[in-house]
Amino acid sequence: MAEVKTPVYEMIENLLNAKKYASLRDLLTTLNPSDIAAVFLDLPEQSLPLLFRLLPKELAAETFVEMDEDAQEILIRGFSDRELNDVVNELYVDDAVDLVEEMPATVVRRILKQATPELRKTINEILQYPEDSAGSIMTTEYVYLRPHLTVAQSLDLIRKNGIDKETIYTCYVLTTDRKLIGIVSARSLLLAQPDVLISDIMEENVISVQTTTDQEQVALMFNKYNFLAIPVVDAEGRMVGIVTVDDAMDVMQEETTEDIEKMAAILPSERPYLKTGIFATFKQRIPWLLILMISATFTGMIITSFEKALAAQVVLTAFIPMLMDTGGNSGSQASVTIIRGLSLNEIEFKDLPRVIWKEFRVGILCGVVLAAANFLRLLLFNRIELPVALVICLTLVIVVVLAKLVGCSLPMFAKKLKLDPAVMASPFITTIVDALSLLLYFEIASSLLKL
Amino acid sequence: MAEVKTPVYEMIENLLNAKKYASLRDLLTTLNPSDIAAVFLDLPEQSLPLLFRLLPKELAAETFVEMDEDAQEILIRGFSDRELNDVVNELYVDDAVDLVEEMPATVVRRILKQATPELRKTINEILQYPEDSAGSIMTTEYVYLRPHLTVAQSLDLIRKNGIDKETIYTCYVLTTDRKLIGIVSARSLLLAQPDVLISDIMEENVISVQTTTDQEQVALMFNKYNFLAIPVVDAEGRMVGIVTVDDAMDVMQEETTEDIEKMAAILPSERPYLKTGIFATFKQRIPWLLILMISATFTGMIITSFEKALAAQVVLTAFIPMLMDTGGNSGSQASVTIIRGLSLNEIEFKDLPRVIWKEFRVGILCGVVLAAANFLRLLLFNRIELPVALVICLTLVIVVVLAKLVGCSLPMFAKKLKLDPAVMASPFITTIVDALSLLLYFEIASSLLKL
Repeated sequence: MAEVKTPVYEMIENLLNAKKYASLRDLLTTLNPSDIAAVFLDLPEQSLPLLFRLLPKELAAETFVEMDEDAQEILIRGFSDRELNDVVNELYVDDAVDLVEEMPATVVRRILKQATPELRKTINEILQYPEDSAGSIMTTEYVYLRPHLTVAQSLDLIRKNGIDKETIYTCYVLTTDRKLIGIVSARSLLLAQPDVLISDIMEENVISVQTTTDQEQVALMFNKYNFLAIPVVDAEGRMVGIVTVDDAMDVMQEETTEDIEKMAAILPSERPYLKTGIFATFKQRIPWLLILMISATFTGMIITSFEKALAAQVVLTAFIPMLMDTGGNSGSQASVTIIRGLSLNEIEFKDLPRVIWKEFRVGILCGVVLAAANFLRLLLFNRIELPVALVICLTLVIVVVLAKLVGCSLPMFAKKLKLDPAVMASPFITTIVDALSLLLYFEIASSLLKL
Repeated sequence: MAEVKTPVYEMIENLLNAKKYASLRDLLTTLNPSDIAAVFLDLPEQSLPLLFRLLPKELAAETFVEMDEDAQEILIRGFSDRELNDVVNELYVDDAVDLVEEMPATVVRRILKQATPELRKTINEILQYPEDSAGSIMTTEYVYLRPHLTVAQSLDLIRKNGIDKETIYTCYVLTTDRKLIGIVSARSLLLAQPDVLISDIMEENVISVQTTTDQEQVALMFNKYNFLAIPVVDAEGRMVGIVTVDDAMDVMQEETTEDIEKMAAILPSERPYLKTGIFATFKQRIPWLLILMISATFTGMIITSFEKALAAQVVLTAFIPMLMDTGGNSGSQASVTIIRGLSLNEIEFKDLPRVIWKEFRVGILCGVVLAAANFLRLLLFNRIELPVALVICLTLVIVVVLAKLVGCSLPMFAKKLKLDPAVMASPFITTIVDALSLLLYFEIASSLLKL
């Protein structure tokens, strides 16, 4: 009735320690596969195979899918061929493909040996599709009907064949050469008269994706059209599989995490934070840190070249961090907003003039307000001379506007050049804006203060 | 067969200009509501009501839901009472609630006047639930069955009542006092023998949420359990509605956009970027820019207090930006990773010691590599004296480690204190790390270089 909490965990632990396996089995069968997987994760590793063997065949396969790679590997290594066979051939095709992709080669060999020839063939076919394409995340199990069937015949067919299909709620109407000509929802089948023909109730405007469509675009289509599944067709328009909404949600979450990581100058990782080793995390983070550190050298060079001016007016140095930080923050605000808009398809390259014009005006507003606040502060609290205060505030306005313009346009150009816009976020923008800010600052200071 | 492209738009425009309304109607009825809404958006505003009237009643309501608020308002203002009545009473309850929440008061009054008393009552009930709760996004339309019915009776019931329900694929088994005791999927109904009792095939371990559960948690449960819908119960365990997977996807996307905005020091907005006015965007961005600008003052004060040291060794100034940027980037990497982990429930507060220990080691690795690279560069290209180079590199290692520790722990403490962890991202962390870096830099410089 409610979410599973720790009491269940303790019950399982106690039953396990007391070796009350029959009761343990009864308890486990009342739980949802995700929750069983979560509890198993917290129990000692050596009890995993025992616990797993207590589960009924179908629940065992469902639980297996929900476990993480490490636990899956431990289990498979402990399985007899017979047990492995049971689990592998209970899996949905897309889950079997995921498993094959994640396991080490020796384990994969055992898995493929136990798979039925048909499953093995399908797995190999799906593995051929490019990574992150619709083909690589689809399942080949779906219900298809013929246009000349009646509703009653179709329902019979579904009863006979549907039990193993990942979703039976959308049925696909195919010609004999597997061309997709329509869809019928289980809902309309249920609600229609038994003697009506499929061709009369099918929806003919089918929205489909190609096997090569990017998985992020597929996920966005679920968002737009509220589908439960979307059909995948090959280059000749023949239906080859479906992507289901649960997989689309996973894709959305993964792709967003990847975007967020890139925006924070981290190379994307495949695994959750706590499951990633120290060295793997280090390798995700060091490349951009090195690149950005070296780019920051330019900023240093700018300061060095204005050493004389700074020595004459040491007070100028005190405002370098404020100018750099404010510029960096203004730029990131713009870039992150645009990157998110691009990845949700809300903004396209053709909007560039609108975006630039908008950011220009927002930049002026932000810049003027920040400069005014700063001007008051400088005169009242810092007791800075008026000319110096003017230099700082004038620089501030220009830096904020420039930062907004750089921040909004770089991700759009990146997208246009088929680069990843997410890389054009805070750290990268900050480095560029830092250099710009300093150049401006010293130029304005030199000319206004006659240094 | 494929995604709708501009040719369709041109066809509609041409038919509209040629006033060929019958053909226009035929064309429109072949399209998906989302696509019709997208095309309407690009057509001249004044043709909207005319086009809308061409659509059949149900398609009109479905298209209406997919349009943006501005277009919806234009349409409603142009509707006769009769037309408004048609649209409003075709809407699903949750869509009607969204509409009432978004429209200005005068429009809302007209909508509620046209709604049936029953719909009006439900809308008002849902509006009472806290914002962003499961209650506020649920629909009250779902199929429920009684335990003593047979499969055949249930299918009849669904045929009779199910046509208006948002999802019929999960049916809820309720007692007479509306307590939720089980679920039956349409799939198991279809696959079961007609004379089996519902109580025999229902799944009794139902996972549900409360009306007050946070919508983000609800969305995460969809991800975890792969549901098509999740039941919502009140404090007494009585079923009051369902949240469907399409709404969960929308919530996930909105909440992620909000997180990303907060991480970039932007106040979250409700509307897409291109739909937000200049002044609204300004108001989203200026508060944090002001706060962060004023905090950057501390950094300035630190520099001022070490003015003498800087005057003695002007070369030190040139490395301030590099140290600050590298510290900021290192800190953001850690904070953004942790914030994402927290919002996906992958990391909890109890993991704090593990997280700190991990970041400490990653920090050392990153710090040492960066310092080594920097040391070489300083000696080879910048020809800096050895003691100064040592000061810079030593500071770098400590700054990177500190930045990682601050970056990983602040979001976790924020979560513990029920604040939003996303605010503890790049800009905030950068400001803290900047001050820390400078203090360290000058302290190390003063003692090693005897300034």
